[in-house]
Amino acid sequence: MIEQKERDFENIIRFIIEIDKVKQIVRQTLLMDQSRHENDAEHSWHMALALFLLKDYASYEELDLVKAVKMVLIHDIVEIDAGDTYAYDIQANHDKYERELKAAKRIFGLLPEDLQNEFMSLWQEFEEGNSPEAQFVGAVDRFMPILHNYKTQGMQWKKHQVTTKMVEERNKPIQQGSEFLWQKVLDIIEDSKQKGFLK
Amino acid sequence: MIEQKERDFENIIRFIIEIDKVKQIVRQTLLMDQSRHENDAEHSWHMALALFLLKDYASYEELDLVKAVKMVLIHDIVEIDAGDTYAYDIQANHDKYERELKAAKRIFGLLPEDLQNEFMSLWQEFEEGNSPEAQFVGAVDRFMPILHNYKTQGMQWKKHQVTTKMVEERNKPIQQGSEFLWQKVLDIIEDSKQKGFLK
Repeated sequence: MIEQKERDFENIIRFIIEIDKVKQIVRQTLLMDQSRHENDAEHSWHMALALFLLKDYASYEELDLVKAVKMVLIHDIVEIDAGDTYAYDIQANHDKYERELKAAKRIFGLLPEDLQNEFMSLWQEFEEGNSPEAQFVGAVDRFMPILHNYKTQGMQWKKHQVTTKMVEERNKPIQQGSEFLWQKVLDIIEDSKQKGFLK
Repeated sequence: MIEQKERDFENIIRFIIEIDKVKQIVRQTLLMDQSRHENDAEHSWHMALALFLLKDYASYEELDLVKAVKMVLIHDIVEIDAGDTYAYDIQANHDKYERELKAAKRIFGLLPEDLQNEFMSLWQEFEEGNSPEAQFVGAVDRFMPILHNYKTQGMQWKKHQVTTKMVEERNKPIQQGSEFLWQKVLDIIEDSKQKGFLK
């Protein structure tokens, strides 16, 4: 028993060291002051707090918050191997799941078996988007870059020639996780169109 | 009621935008590959995951994990105004609490009243370090930079002429939160001394 606990600890530390790389995965999103791009670790922290702050606006009254916050914290770890796939890059999104599944197996595979199984199924649950937690976490994950784009006068939207229709279609699943948030997103999209942030 | 919910939402969004600044608060700690310094948002994300991964090594069998993870996520937000205070800077640590309390009042003050009160008392509980959650979160907060220093051959320890005795004294509170982690820290300190990472 003691030996197992020691071995598990060593594997956990190996994993903690490995995921330091998440701090170097650069996203398309800019920081709100436009000074540089955001990375996955920063995004995951911001999103974890947003989860707690916005939970009363979820479509579901009962959310397992421990499960949901773990989902947030691990949702982008696969990008250590698979890289960040831009939401509006159709080609790269084609084989995204396969690349990420392989990454999940390798990276979560560093952990002791129980944690490995837990993180693997949390990540898959998030990807499938069927549970209340996955749907709400997915809504917050989509909402954050919209807020960043809105606050930066649509700089990245303009750069990638993103249209109103593209943002609406891509972000429609927000509605499942939070009708309230979806209405706010529609307001932001409308205002962004007016202001020329979106075509 | 609906109006209140709308007003609360606006205030939450104001807060979410304000805390984007946490991504620009640079710590003394280097990333594990030594490429650059780490920031508070990245540190908080890493630490939140470490909390879940290491919870079975805590001194307490029952931890309120939602409370603990919220504590992790907000613990460095005050540094938006107060700045990062280096652990071994005695002078700057002198008026640290006063500076940070003022910051907490301003920043958490952006939130709706219930969240404001919750975050304020979570932050104070963490600072006081008396509850099981505060002690374990405090232990993980101290453990992370030790691991970073160890993995980077003590680069920051050497730069600031940190001694074995300083690391031991500064990190002794880890023992309250986790006897297991404290023993591991003593091993790391001993090995770091042998390898010349620490004087």
